[in-house]
Amino acid sequence: MKYAKIPGATITRLSMYSRVLERIAQEDVRIVSSERLATLCEVNPAQIRKDLSYFGEFGVRGVGYYVKELLFEIKRILGLNREWKMGIVGVGNLGLALLSHENFSRQGYLFVAAFDNDPQKTSKKLPNGLVIHHINELPLVAKETGIEIGVIATPANWAQDIANRFIKANVPAILNFAPTQIHVPEGFQVENVDFTVKLDNLAYHFSSKV
Amino acid sequence: MKYAKIPGATITRLSMYSRVLERIAQEDVRIVSSERLATLCEVNPAQIRKDLSYFGEFGVRGVGYYVKELLFEIKRILGLNREWKMGIVGVGNLGLALLSHENFSRQGYLFVAAFDNDPQKTSKKLPNGLVIHHINELPLVAKETGIEIGVIATPANWAQDIANRFIKANVPAILNFAPTQIHVPEGFQVENVDFTVKLDNLAYHFSSKV
Repeated sequence: MKYAKIPGATITRLSMYSRVLERIAQEDVRIVSSERLATLCEVNPAQIRKDLSYFGEFGVRGVGYYVKELLFEIKRILGLNREWKMGIVGVGNLGLALLSHENFSRQGYLFVAAFDNDPQKTSKKLPNGLVIHHINELPLVAKETGIEIGVIATPANWAQDIANRFIKANVPAILNFAPTQIHVPEGFQVENVDFTVKLDNLAYHFSSKV
Repeated sequence: MKYAKIPGATITRLSMYSRVLERIAQEDVRIVSSERLATLCEVNPAQIRKDLSYFGEFGVRGVGYYVKELLFEIKRILGLNREWKMGIVGVGNLGLALLSHENFSRQGYLFVAAFDNDPQKTSKKLPNGLVIHHINELPLVAKETGIEIGVIATPANWAQDIANRFIKANVPAILNFAPTQIHVPEGFQVENVDFTVKLDNLAYHFSSKV
Protein backbone atom coordinates (compact mmCIF):
# COMPACT_ATOMS: atom_id res chain seq x y z
CA MET A 1 0.00 0.00 0.00
CA LYS A 2 1.31 3.44 -0.93
CA TYR A 3 0.41 6.47 1.17
CA ALA A 4 0.52 9.85 -0.53
CA LYS A 5 3.09 12.50 0.43
CA ILE A 6 4.06 11.61 3.96
CA PRO A 7 6.66 14.05 5.36
CA GLY A 8 10.04 12.45 6.01
CA ALA A 9 9.93 13.85 9.56
CA THR A 10 6.75 11.87 10.20
CA ILE A 11 8.49 8.64 9.18
CA THR A 12 11.43 9.44 11.46
CA ARG A 13 9.02 10.08 14.34
CA LEU A 14 7.07 6.86 13.68
CA SER A 15 10.39 5.07 13.90
CA MET A 16 10.98 6.71 17.28
CA TYR A 17 7.44 5.92 18.50
CA SER A 18 8.00 2.26 17.61
CA ARG A 19 11.15 2.16 19.75
CA VAL A 20 9.36 3.67 22.74
CA LEU A 21 6.37 1.34 22.28
CA GLU A 22 8.71 -1.65 22.04
CA ARG A 23 10.33 -0.63 25.31
CA ILE A 24 7.08 -0.20 27.23
CA ALA A 25 5.65 -3.40 25.69
CA GLN A 26 8.63 -5.21 27.21
CA GLU A 27 7.71 -3.63 30.53
CA ASP A 28 4.25 -5.22 30.09
CA VAL A 29 2.44 -1.90 29.68
CA ARG A 30 -0.81 -2.76 27.87
CA ILE A 31 -2.38 0.68 27.38
CA VAL A 32 -0.72 4.07 27.12
CA SER A 33 -2.45 7.46 27.10
CA SER A 34 -1.53 9.80 24.26
CA GLU A 35 -0.16 12.26 26.86
CA ARG A 36 2.11 9.63 28.42
CA LEU A 37 3.27 8.37 25.03
CA ALA A 38 3.95 11.96 23.97
CA THR A 39 6.04 12.59 27.10
CA LEU A 40 8.06 9.42 26.53
CA CYS A 41 8.64 10.40 22.90
CA GLU A 42 9.39 14.04 23.76
CA VAL A 43 6.80 15.44 21.34
CA ASN A 44 3.35 16.90 21.99
CA PRO A 45 0.22 14.68 21.87
CA ALA A 46 -1.16 16.60 18.86
CA GLN A 47 1.98 15.67 16.92
CA ILE A 48 1.46 11.96 17.53
CA ARG A 49 -2.20 12.19 16.50
CA LYS A 50 -1.27 14.11 13.35
CA ASP A 51 1.50 11.66 12.40
CA LEU A 52 -0.81 8.68 12.83
CA SER A 53 -3.72 10.36 11.05
CA TYR A 54 -1.95 9.91 7.70
CA PHE A 55 -2.45 6.19 8.03
CA GLY A 56 -5.90 5.76 9.57
CA GLU A 57 -7.55 5.89 12.98
CA PHE A 58 -5.67 4.64 16.02
CA GLY A 59 -6.35 4.66 19.75
CA VAL A 60 -9.56 4.80 21.74
CA ARG A 61 -10.92 8.14 22.92
CA GLY A 62 -10.62 8.49 26.68
CA VAL A 63 -8.47 5.34 26.90
CA GLY A 64 -5.38 5.83 24.82
CA TYR A 65 -3.50 3.39 22.65
CA TYR A 66 -3.22 -0.37 22.99
CA VAL A 67 0.56 -0.69 23.05
CA LYS A 68 1.00 -3.93 21.10
CA GLU A 69 -1.66 -3.04 18.57
CA LEU A 70 -0.16 0.39 17.85
CA LEU A 71 3.34 -1.10 17.68
CA PHE A 72 2.13 -3.71 15.20
CA GLU A 73 0.46 -1.06 13.03
CA ILE A 74 3.48 1.27 13.03
CA LYS A 75 5.79 -1.61 12.12
CA ARG A 76 3.44 -2.54 9.29
CA ILE A 77 3.40 1.08 8.06
CA LEU A 78 7.20 1.33 8.16
CA GLY A 79 7.67 -2.04 6.49
CA LEU A 80 9.24 -3.56 9.60
CA ASN A 81 6.92 -6.54 9.71
CA ARG A 82 9.48 -8.42 7.64
CA GLU A 83 13.25 -8.84 7.49
CA TRP A 84 15.54 -6.71 5.33
CA LYS A 85 18.75 -8.12 3.86
CA MET A 86 21.84 -5.95 4.05
CA GLY A 87 25.26 -6.14 2.44
CA ILE A 88 28.15 -4.12 3.81
CA VAL A 89 31.24 -2.83 2.03
CA GLY A 90 34.25 -1.97 4.18
CA VAL A 91 35.24 -4.34 6.96
CA GLY A 92 37.40 -1.92 8.95
CA ASN A 93 36.70 -0.85 12.53
CA LEU A 94 33.36 0.74 11.67
CA GLY A 95 32.29 -2.19 9.49
CA LEU A 96 33.13 -4.68 12.23
CA ALA A 97 31.25 -2.58 14.78
CA LEU A 98 28.17 -2.46 12.54
CA LEU A 99 28.33 -6.18 11.76
CA SER A 100 28.15 -6.99 15.46
CA HIS A 101 25.71 -4.21 16.45
CA GLU A 102 22.83 -5.83 18.36
CA ASN A 103 20.18 -3.35 17.28
CA PHE A 104 20.19 -4.22 13.60
CA SER A 105 19.07 -7.83 13.89
CA ARG A 106 16.74 -6.93 16.77
CA GLN A 107 14.91 -4.56 14.38
CA GLY A 108 14.87 -7.05 11.51
CA TYR A 109 17.92 -5.80 9.59
CA LEU A 110 20.17 -8.74 8.76
CA PHE A 111 23.62 -8.70 7.25
CA VAL A 112 23.77 -11.36 4.54
CA ALA A 113 27.07 -10.37 2.92
CA ALA A 114 30.28 -8.43 3.62
CA PHE A 115 32.85 -7.07 1.15
CA ASP A 116 36.30 -5.50 1.25
CA ASN A 117 39.04 -4.77 -1.27
CA ASP A 118 41.89 -5.79 1.05
CA PRO A 119 43.23 -9.25 0.05
CA GLN A 120 44.34 -9.68 3.68
CA LYS A 121 40.69 -9.66 4.69
CA THR A 122 38.88 -11.44 1.86
CA SER A 123 38.00 -15.12 2.42
CA LYS A 124 38.28 -14.62 6.18
CA LYS A 125 35.31 -15.63 8.30
CA LEU A 126 33.58 -13.06 10.52
CA PRO A 127 32.31 -13.77 14.06
CA ASN A 128 28.74 -13.90 12.70
CA GLY A 129 29.72 -16.65 10.24
CA LEU A 130 29.82 -14.53 7.07
CA VAL A 131 32.84 -14.85 4.80
CA ILE A 132 34.32 -11.56 3.54
CA HIS A 133 34.05 -11.35 -0.24
CA HIS A 134 36.22 -9.29 -2.53
CA ILE A 135 34.39 -6.18 -3.69
CA ASN A 136 34.54 -7.41 -7.29
CA GLU A 137 32.23 -10.26 -6.34
CA LEU A 138 29.48 -7.82 -5.35
CA PRO A 139 27.32 -8.23 -8.49
CA LEU A 140 27.16 -12.01 -8.16
CA VAL A 141 26.83 -12.14 -4.35
CA ALA A 142 24.21 -9.37 -4.27
CA LYS A 143 22.06 -11.43 -6.63
CA GLU A 144 22.62 -14.73 -4.81
CA THR A 145 21.96 -13.37 -1.32
CA GLY A 146 19.25 -10.89 -2.34
CA ILE A 147 20.80 -7.75 -0.81
CA GLU A 148 18.13 -5.03 -0.47
CA ILE A 149 20.11 -2.45 1.50
CA GLY A 150 23.74 -1.63 0.77
CA VAL A 151 25.74 -0.32 3.72
CA ILE A 152 28.84 1.76 2.98
CA ALA A 153 31.52 1.78 5.69
CA THR A 154 34.53 2.75 3.60
CA PRO A 155 36.67 5.90 3.66
CA ALA A 156 35.02 8.93 2.05
CA ASN A 157 36.95 8.75 -1.23
CA TRP A 158 35.59 5.28 -2.00
CA ALA A 159 31.96 5.88 -1.12
CA GLN A 160 30.57 7.05 -4.48
CA ASP A 161 32.30 4.22 -6.34
CA ILE A 162 30.78 1.69 -3.94
CA ALA A 163 27.36 3.32 -4.29
CA ASN A 164 27.67 3.00 -8.07
CA ARG A 165 28.43 -0.70 -7.70
CA PHE A 166 25.36 -1.22 -5.49
CA ILE A 167 23.23 0.66 -8.03
CA LYS A 168 24.58 -1.39 -10.94
CA ALA A 169 23.73 -4.51 -8.93
CA ASN A 170 20.19 -3.17 -8.50
CA VAL A 171 20.40 -2.72 -4.73
CA PRO A 172 17.74 -0.01 -4.28
CA ALA A 173 18.60 1.39 -0.84
CA ILE A 174 21.91 2.66 0.50
CA LEU A 175 22.92 3.53 4.05
CA ASN A 176 26.07 5.63 3.91
CA PHE A 177 28.40 5.97 6.90
CA ALA A 178 31.24 7.57 4.94
CA PRO A 179 31.59 11.30 5.70
CA THR A 180 30.73 12.48 2.19
CA GLN A 181 27.76 13.22 -0.07
CA ILE A 182 26.57 10.38 -2.29
CA HIS A 183 24.46 10.77 -5.40
CA VAL A 184 22.06 8.12 -6.65
CA PRO A 185 19.74 8.12 -9.68
CA GLU A 186 15.96 8.27 -9.42
CA GLY A 187 14.36 5.14 -8.04
CA PHE A 188 17.26 4.59 -5.65
CA GLN A 189 17.41 5.98 -2.14
CA VAL A 190 20.35 6.96 0.05
CA GLU A 191 20.39 7.84 3.75
CA ASN A 192 23.50 9.37 5.26
CA VAL A 193 24.46 8.74 8.86
CA ASP A 194 26.22 11.78 10.28
CA PHE A 195 27.47 11.24 13.83
CA THR A 196 28.13 14.93 14.36
CA VAL A 197 24.50 16.13 14.08
CA LYS A 198 23.76 14.87 17.59
CA LEU A 199 26.91 16.59 18.84
CA ASP A 200 25.62 19.89 17.48
CA ASN A 201 22.53 19.45 19.66
CA LEU A 202 24.74 19.01 22.72
CA ALA A 203 26.96 21.94 21.75
CA TYR A 204 23.93 24.20 21.30
CA HIS A 205 22.46 23.11 24.59
CA PHE A 206 25.53 23.99 26.60
CA SER A 207 26.84 26.97 24.66
CA SER A 208 23.47 28.73 24.92
CA LYS A 209 23.62 28.43 28.69
CA VAL A 210 26.65 30.68 28.99
CA MET B 1 23.32 34.34 24.97
CA LYS B 2 20.29 32.20 25.74
CA TYR B 3 17.38 31.99 23.33
CA ALA B 4 13.99 31.08 24.74
CA LYS B 5 12.26 27.79 23.89
CA ILE B 6 13.80 26.79 20.57
CA PRO B 7 12.35 23.49 19.29
CA GLY B 8 14.88 20.66 19.14
CA ALA B 9 13.94 20.05 15.51
CA THR B 10 15.03 23.61 14.69
CA ILE B 11 18.47 22.95 16.15
CA THR B 12 18.78 19.71 14.17
CA ARG B 13 17.83 21.59 10.99
CA LEU B 14 20.30 24.43 11.72
CA SER B 15 22.95 21.76 12.02
CA MET B 16 21.94 20.43 8.59
CA TYR B 17 21.85 23.94 7.07
CA SER B 18 25.39 24.54 8.32
CA ARG B 19 26.60 21.37 6.56
CA VAL B 20 25.01 22.37 3.27
CA LEU B 21 26.37 25.93 3.59
CA GLU B 22 29.82 24.59 4.34
CA ARG B 23 29.69 22.46 1.21
CA ILE B 24 28.60 25.27 -1.09
CA ALA B 25 31.07 27.68 0.54
CA GLN B 26 33.79 25.23 -0.46
CA GLU B 27 32.41 25.37 -4.01
CA ASP B 28 32.93 29.17 -3.84
CA VAL B 29 29.21 29.98 -3.91
CA ARG B 30 28.93 33.48 -2.42
CA ILE B 31 25.16 34.04 -2.41
CA VAL B 32 22.35 31.51 -2.26
CA SER B 33 18.64 32.20 -2.74
CA SER B 34 16.35 30.89 -0.03
CA GLU B 35 14.67 28.66 -2.64
CA ARG B 36 17.99 27.11 -3.70
CA LEU B 37 19.12 26.66 -0.10
CA ALA B 38 15.75 25.07 0.73
CA THR B 39 16.10 22.62 -2.19
CA LEU B 40 19.62 21.65 -1.12
CA CYS B 41 18.42 21.13 2.46
CA GLU B 42 15.25 19.30 1.38
CA VAL B 43 12.93 21.58 3.35
CA ASN B 44 10.67 24.39 2.19
CA PRO B 45 11.90 28.03 2.14
CA ALA B 46 9.35 29.07 4.79
CA GLN B 47 10.87 26.49 7.15
CA ILE B 48 14.35 28.01 6.82
CA ARG B 49 12.99 31.53 7.37
CA LYS B 50 11.05 30.35 10.44
CA ASP B 51 14.04 28.49 11.91
CA LEU B 52 16.30 31.52 11.48
CA SER B 53 13.68 33.97 12.76
CA TYR B 54 14.22 32.69 16.32
CA PHE B 55 17.68 34.20 16.26
CA GLY B 56 17.29 37.48 14.37
CA GLU B 57 17.11 38.72 10.79
CA PHE B 58 19.17 37.06 8.10
CA GLY B 59 19.38 37.37 4.34
CA VAL B 60 18.60 40.21 1.98
CA ARG B 61 15.18 40.46 0.36
CA GLY B 62 15.37 39.72 -3.39
CA VAL B 63 18.98 38.59 -3.06
CA GLY B 64 19.13 35.66 -0.68
CA TYR B 65 21.72 34.75 1.90
CA TYR B 66 25.42 35.54 1.91
CA VAL B 67 26.79 32.00 2.32
CA LYS B 68 29.78 32.68 4.57
CA GLU B 69 27.89 35.18 6.70
CA LEU B 70 24.97 32.82 7.29
CA LEU B 71 27.33 29.93 7.99
CA PHE B 72 29.20 32.05 10.53
CA GLU B 73 25.95 33.06 12.25
CA ILE B 74 24.56 29.52 12.40
CA LYS B 75 27.84 28.23 13.82
CA ARG B 76 27.75 30.95 16.42
CA ILE B 77 24.15 30.07 17.33
CA LEU B 78 24.97 26.36 17.63
CA GLY B 79 28.12 27.01 19.63
CA LEU B 80 30.38 25.69 16.86
CA ASN B 81 32.59 28.76 16.72
CA ARG B 82 34.83 27.03 19.24
CA GLU B 83 36.27 23.58 19.86
CA TRP B 84 34.62 20.97 22.07
CA LYS B 85 36.67 18.45 24.03
CA MET B 86 35.48 14.85 24.02
CA GLY B 87 36.44 11.79 26.04
CA ILE B 88 35.48 8.33 24.83
CA VAL B 89 34.91 5.17 26.86
CA GLY B 90 35.18 1.86 25.01
CA VAL B 91 38.04 1.36 22.59
CA GLY B 92 36.58 -1.57 20.65
CA ASN B 93 35.78 -1.53 16.94
CA LEU B 94 33.23 1.25 17.28
CA GLY B 95 35.47 3.32 19.56
CA LEU B 96 38.40 3.00 17.16
CA ALA B 97 36.17 3.96 14.24
CA LEU B 98 34.94 7.06 16.08
CA LEU B 99 38.44 8.06 17.20
CA SER B 100 39.59 8.14 13.57
CA HIS B 101 36.39 9.58 12.08
CA GLU B 102 37.36 12.63 10.00
CA ASN B 103 34.11 14.53 10.51
CA PHE B 104 34.52 15.09 14.25
CA SER B 105 37.66 17.19 14.13
CA ARG B 106 36.50 18.89 10.94
CA GLN B 107 33.45 20.15 12.88
CA GLY B 108 35.48 21.17 15.92
CA TYR B 109 34.91 18.07 18.08
CA LEU B 110 38.24 16.84 19.40
CA PHE B 111 38.99 13.67 21.32
CA VAL B 112 41.25 14.55 24.25
CA ALA B 113 41.03 11.24 26.15
CA ALA B 114 40.15 7.56 25.67
CA PHE B 115 39.28 4.93 28.29
CA ASP B 116 38.76 1.19 28.44
CA ASN B 117 38.54 -1.43 31.20
CA ASP B 118 40.59 -4.03 29.32
CA PRO B 119 44.13 -4.23 30.77
CA GLN B 120 45.28 -5.49 27.35
CA LYS B 121 44.36 -2.10 25.93
CA THR B 122 45.21 0.38 28.67
CA SER B 123 48.53 2.24 28.34
CA LYS B 124 48.57 1.52 24.61
CA LYS B 125 48.98 4.45 22.25
CA LEU B 126 46.30 5.16 19.63
CA PRO B 127 47.05 6.26 16.03
CA ASN B 128 46.03 9.82 16.98
CA GLY B 129 48.60 9.90 19.76
CA LEU B 130 46.26 9.46 22.73
CA VAL B 131 47.12 6.88 25.37
CA ILE B 132 44.25 4.62 26.49
CA HIS B 133 43.53 5.16 30.18
CA HIS B 134 41.91 2.69 32.52
CA ILE B 135 38.29 3.63 33.18
CA ASN B 136 39.10 4.15 36.86
CA GLU B 137 41.28 7.10 35.90
CA LEU B 138 38.29 8.92 34.39
CA PRO B 139 37.71 11.39 37.27
CA LEU B 140 41.31 12.60 37.24
CA VAL B 141 41.80 12.62 33.47
CA ALA B 142 38.43 14.31 32.84
CA LYS B 143 39.53 17.15 35.08
CA GLU B 144 43.04 17.40 33.65
CA THR B 145 41.96 17.35 30.00
CA GLY B 146 38.73 19.31 30.46
CA ILE B 147 36.35 16.79 28.87
CA GLU B 148 33.05 18.52 27.98
CA ILE B 149 31.37 15.72 26.04
CA GLY B 150 31.51 12.08 27.13
CA VAL B 151 31.16 9.54 24.32
CA ILE B 152 29.97 6.04 25.24
CA ALA B 153 31.01 3.25 22.85
CA THR B 154 30.69 0.28 25.21
CA PRO B 155 28.29 -2.68 25.11
CA ALA B 156 24.74 -1.85 26.24
CA ASN B 157 25.06 -3.36 29.73
CA TRP B 158 27.91 -0.96 30.65
CA ALA B 159 26.42 2.23 29.28
CA GLN B 160 24.52 3.50 32.34
CA ASP B 161 27.47 2.85 34.65
CA ILE B 162 29.76 4.82 32.32
CA ALA B 163 27.20 7.63 32.11
CA ASN B 164 27.15 7.76 35.92
CA ARG B 165 30.94 8.08 35.97
CA PHE B 166 30.84 10.96 33.48
CA ILE B 167 28.14 12.66 35.56
CA LYS B 168 30.15 12.22 38.77
CA ALA B 169 33.13 13.78 36.97
CA ASN B 170 30.89 16.71 36.01
CA VAL B 171 30.97 16.06 32.27
CA PRO B 172 27.71 17.78 31.27
CA ALA B 173 27.00 16.25 27.84
CA ILE B 174 26.88 12.60 26.80
CA LEU B 175 26.75 11.09 23.33
CA ASN B 176 25.62 7.48 23.66
CA PHE B 177 26.30 4.91 20.94
CA ALA B 178 25.33 1.90 23.07
CA PRO B 179 21.98 0.42 22.04
CA THR B 180 20.19 1.20 25.31
CA GLN B 181 18.39 4.02 27.12
CA ILE B 182 20.49 6.16 29.44
CA HIS B 183 19.16 8.33 32.22
CA VAL B 184 20.86 11.52 33.40
CA PRO B 185 19.87 13.98 36.13
CA GLU B 186 18.70 17.51 35.41
CA GLY B 187 21.41 19.82 34.14
CA PHE B 188 23.02 17.01 32.17
CA GLN B 189 22.14 16.16 28.59
CA VAL B 190 22.30 12.89 26.69
CA GLU B 191 21.90 12.28 22.95
CA ASN B 192 21.50 8.73 21.68
CA VAL B 193 22.80 7.69 18.29
CA ASP B 194 20.58 5.00 16.83
CA PHE B 195 21.87 3.66 13.52
CA THR B 196 18.60 1.90 12.75
CA VAL B 197 16.41 5.03 12.49
CA LYS B 198 17.80 5.79 9.04
CA LEU B 199 17.20 2.19 8.04
CA ASP B 200 13.52 2.58 8.94
CA ASN B 201 13.34 5.46 6.46
CA LEU B 202 14.73 3.22 3.74
CA ALA B 203 12.44 0.34 4.70
CA TYR B 204 9.40 2.62 4.60
CA HIS B 205 10.40 4.05 1.25
CA PHE B 206 10.65 0.68 -0.44
CA SER B 207 7.94 -1.23 1.36
CA SER B 208 5.34 1.43 0.58
CA LYS B 209 6.13 1.05 -3.13
CA VAL B 210 4.89 -2.51 -3.30
